[in-house]
Amino acid sequence: MGFSITFLGTGAATPTLRRGLSATVANVDEKLCLFDCGEATQIQMKRFKVKALHIQHIFISHLHGDHFFGLVGLLFTYHIGKRKNELHVYGPPLLEEILRIQMGISVKELNYPLVFHPLSSQNLEMVCEEDNFTVSAFPLQHRLPAYGFLLKEKERPRKVLHQFIEDYHPHYTDIVRIKSGEDYVLPDGRILSNEEITFPDPPISFAYCFDTAFYAPIAEVLKNVDLLYHEATFMHDKAELAAEKGHTTTIQAATIAKKALAKRLMLGHISSRYRNLDSFLNEARNIFSETYLAEDGMTITLRK
Amino acid sequence: MGFSITFLGTGAATPTLRRGLSATVANVDEKLCLFDCGEATQIQMKRFKVKALHIQHIFISHLHGDHFFGLVGLLFTYHIGKRKNELHVYGPPLLEEILRIQMGISVKELNYPLVFHPLSSQNLEMVCEEDNFTVSAFPLQHRLPAYGFLLKEKERPRKVLHQFIEDYHPHYTDIVRIKSGEDYVLPDGRILSNEEITFPDPPISFAYCFDTAFYAPIAEVLKNVDLLYHEATFMHDKAELAAEKGHTTTIQAATIAKKALAKRLMLGHISSRYRNLDSFLNEARNIFSETYLAEDGMTITLRK
Repeated sequence: MGFSITFLGTGAATPTLRRGLSATVANVDEKLCLFDCGEATQIQMKRFKVKALHIQHIFISHLHGDHFFGLVGLLFTYHIGKRKNELHVYGPPLLEEILRIQMGISVKELNYPLVFHPLSSQNLEMVCEEDNFTVSAFPLQHRLPAYGFLLKEKERPRKVLHQFIEDYHPHYTDIVRIKSGEDYVLPDGRILSNEEITFPDPPISFAYCFDTAFYAPIAEVLKNVDLLYHEATFMHDKAELAAEKGHTTTIQAATIAKKALAKRLMLGHISSRYRNLDSFLNEARNIFSETYLAEDGMTITLRK
Repeated sequence: MGFSITFLGTGAATPTLRRGLSATVANVDEKLCLFDCGEATQIQMKRFKVKALHIQHIFISHLHGDHFFGLVGLLFTYHIGKRKNELHVYGPPLLEEILRIQMGISVKELNYPLVFHPLSSQNLEMVCEEDNFTVSAFPLQHRLPAYGFLLKEKERPRKVLHQFIEDYHPHYTDIVRIKSGEDYVLPDGRILSNEEITFPDPPISFAYCFDTAFYAPIAEVLKNVDLLYHEATFMHDKAELAAEKGHTTTIQAATIAKKALAKRLMLGHISSRYRNLDSFLNEARNIFSETYLAEDGMTITLRK
């Protein structure tokens, strides 16, 4: 069962032909979460073959247009496309009103249940729970209220060693029992302990931090995260402008990743002023070597 | 001085990779008018190299999302792109409130003057006047209030015959005088009348009819239009569905063009259910031979 992240829009403020507006899909065992939904996100989904109908949760970080102007169009497309399954939308309270006024013009009743979850907590708070993962929201520092999101898989059953299967050809029902933690009893009565015939399948975590000024306290929330996707609008010579605009520089994002002991850092929300991104990337890598640039359409597979 | 129409989005309801959502640009002597602004219009403008900053007037036909969800993003892009020149937006009154609530979240004062013109007339009404053209709005028949638009050039000065210029090498100031209607006096005193050394440069007109059920009375408004861009969502076997949804069929759009004595008919708002469009087009051409299908990125030059 897989875990992957697909970047649909990696640009900042206004779209370019290379970088669309903020939108990122996490696919956890075919349950999809969308983080932000800038204009044309539904088109990017078609372009990059994301199964839009598998999206169950949409998290909107804040109410700057480049992070949510595509949401109403997506909800409308779901409606006329006869979506039936429930959709959960999480965002600042005013978002509900914005959606209501626009959808209400032409839609009396949506064809699918839409559940809105207003975000307002000042601390880390679990806002979504599925069988296999949770998503928590935490406040960032921006020009208006903004939230980061931490998607964490729950503990996963240990996996059965291939060598054990090859050696003993256990029945399928035995494998189910072993996965649930039982030992294995051989025909001659000998016992193989669960620990010696299995290995751990560690849960994966993904964090989404858009938009925010450099905000060191979040490193604690992000501790040991597998993939940190953090905004880096500017290079560090623009640190003053970044602070004024509530954005982060390359070096600052890398500093957060380093403090958080993240396994990997992806940078997005990249200002269109940067054409050649070699120095942009190197500046971050000097602080945190496992840094990469997000590109529209790129998928990172964290588990196959 | 030129007159051209560029189709940015020719699809219906939801975007596909082939057809974006409704948006059409008329370029009259480098003054640009945008008719409708579906989601991702600003991206289509980049893709098809339309000079977004030259747009002075935006006409929104009605408040179904596929015709205006891209407007707020475009206005926002103008703001951060430091637009200075005035922008006029024409649309149903509620549009102003929808824009205000969304822009107001992050923008205290726009960097450019935005003038909103509410549409509400039940008759043909001139809503916009420029030096060289006017735009009039007229009601259509749809599930909610919808307007068609007629862009008409004003009378244009007659053009000077090339043969006259070759034969007599008139001075530039003479040409200006001839264009203003004066006769030309030869050195020997003979007079060449204005009419014999000039020819008419007839004003061009363009009409935009989206979305509407078949509505015969508009043929009168559209009389002799040079280019009629009319919605044709369905083929004629879906006439009942078209009427129910407030849309037009191929045959109905062609009938309007024929009644109006239009010079050319372009069809748009084509349902994504149609893959091969040969029969779609032929159905209309059987009624009105000068019918063509609009495609995203296509430009029709009515005067070079």
